[in-house]
Amino acid sequence: MSQQVTVMEVSPRDGLQNEDVPFTTEQKLELIDRALASGCRRIEVTSFVHPKVVPQMADAEAVCLGLPQRGDVSYTGLILNERGYDRLRATGRLDEAGLVVPASDTFGERNQGQDVAAARAMALDVLRRGGREGFPVQVTIAVAFGCPFEGEVPLQRVVDLAKAFADAGATEIALADTIGVGVPGQVLEAFTALRKTLGDALPLRAHFHDTRNTGIANAFAALQAGVNTLDASIGGIGGCPFAPNATGNIATEDLVYMLDRSSVAHDVRLPDLLDAAAWLETELGKPVPSSLLKAGGFPGSE
Amino acid sequence: MSQQVTVMEVSPRDGLQNEDVPFTTEQKLELIDRALASGCRRIEVTSFVHPKVVPQMADAEAVCLGLPQRGDVSYTGLILNERGYDRLRATGRLDEAGLVVPASDTFGERNQGQDVAAARAMALDVLRRGGREGFPVQVTIAVAFGCPFEGEVPLQRVVDLAKAFADAGATEIALADTIGVGVPGQVLEAFTALRKTLGDALPLRAHFHDTRNTGIANAFAALQAGVNTLDASIGGIGGCPFAPNATGNIATEDLVYMLDRSSVAHDVRLPDLLDAAAWLETELGKPVPSSLLKAGGFPGSE
Repeated sequence: MSQQVTVMEVSPRDGLQNEDVPFTTEQKLELIDRALASGCRRIEVTSFVHPKVVPQMADAEAVCLGLPQRGDVSYTGLILNERGYDRLRATGRLDEAGLVVPASDTFGERNQGQDVAAARAMALDVLRRGGREGFPVQVTIAVAFGCPFEGEVPLQRVVDLAKAFADAGATEIALADTIGVGVPGQVLEAFTALRKTLGDALPLRAHFHDTRNTGIANAFAALQAGVNTLDASIGGIGGCPFAPNATGNIATEDLVYMLDRSSVAHDVRLPDLLDAAAWLETELGKPVPSSLLKAGGFPGSE
Repeated sequence: MSQQVTVMEVSPRDGLQNEDVPFTTEQKLELIDRALASGCRRIEVTSFVHPKVVPQMADAEAVCLGLPQRGDVSYTGLILNERGYDRLRATGRLDEAGLVVPASDTFGERNQGQDVAAARAMALDVLRRGGREGFPVQVTIAVAFGCPFEGEVPLQRVVDLAKAFADAGATEIALADTIGVGVPGQVLEAFTALRKTLGDALPLRAHFHDTRNTGIANAFAALQAGVNTLDASIGGIGGCPFAPNATGNIATEDLVYMLDRSSVAHDVRLPDLLDAAAWLETELGKPVPSSLLKAGGFPGSE
């Protein structure tokens, strides 16, 4: 069981990308400021995808230019190809690139116009460039626990992809339950298999959606399997535009409640997160899925 | 890890007792019929408490008289004292009595007018009567993972209560996270401690609320600790009138999704549960908290 974990705040990217309410660059930077003020030290700030496909991310460069420059935070940008890598590098403001590779052909074709083989080849190219340029590139394997179109995704396929990316120099491997179908037993099995194949040194990250109410259970199972980083989104906002019925990421405040009460060390403070979630609810003009925002923390703790 | 589990359907009692919409006896019996049609074979059908305190349970005897008489189901009624035991026994229709004993004085006084010591003494009296009369009596320890008024509840207090009830002939010990504050690490620790103290033979049950989004995670941890039965409520309805901010039990369909995908054997069928949850939503005239009712099952499974 992980005794400490990094919480990667993904609301500025995965959180916002599926929201109907367009956010200005200033609002995004305020969201990032609020994450920083809550203690978050690793933040996925944007994605470098085509603005026609994900309009909410059209200001990726402007967001990067506005990021507070401080030495104690790692800013990540999501990329789907070498063009995204070039754009990300050109900003000069991010600390790593996060590739996404699908674990199923149909999802890959709909999400990023690449089947698994094409996305794998693209990722290997970008990883080699990152290696040559000394720039950290990590890889997220999407729909790793089930595909909205193909159903079951064989674990061996996921492990084989992870092995290829690790061998090519990925600084971290993440498994994403993009559509929220995973269950904790499956998560335990998958990350245990990754640890066995990749060894104990390579950082592992987990990305869960709460669509079928298994998100926090999956986070607990990932901790049991020794993951180093858990993705979460303030307010539990988010979803994938190419994944039918996908709802938000696990809410950062719900995750942090579980971590705090489980004595798992991390950097984030629940009261500040609740303030941020309340602000986000106002900006979005609708309730956010967060349970902690409704229920409050442990009795007497606030 | 439990390889099979019994799902105890509690919607007719814990589910309905905190709902504003009054249900007729006929509606309650239809809910029970729908649970039976979904495969449920253990159902908490009512509670024998004073009708002034919980008006929704005023027809406890009428519900019992209307229960389908069949040999393959265990019907449970909740009781808080010897008077409740007498009423339950007088119906002649139930298979066991379920006592509730608080793990904190303040909650006990507000929930049932008894501090821990008084409730413990009452429970021991009822357990001895059950033993003399050959009638199964199980005990649920309420607010076992935290009290809305006192905060932390020492695990040793919970274990000591459980030991006393087991020694007095309780047929099962349950721990209830009445206000939904528990986290999976705590659940694992608590049920592991119970197993160590009570041995492997005594059935253990777990009762979770999803207030802080930890309900399914807690159910998974309880399975890891070897519990035999998990409480759940169709649609995720419910809550405790004496527990501020308490929301519903974990939804039976959310639990069953996790169990099915984890290859944990049980009796209940997800498609029938989803029908029942949709019916319940109509009867209540408002959305139920269930995640599965919104998201649907695993892609391609229906």
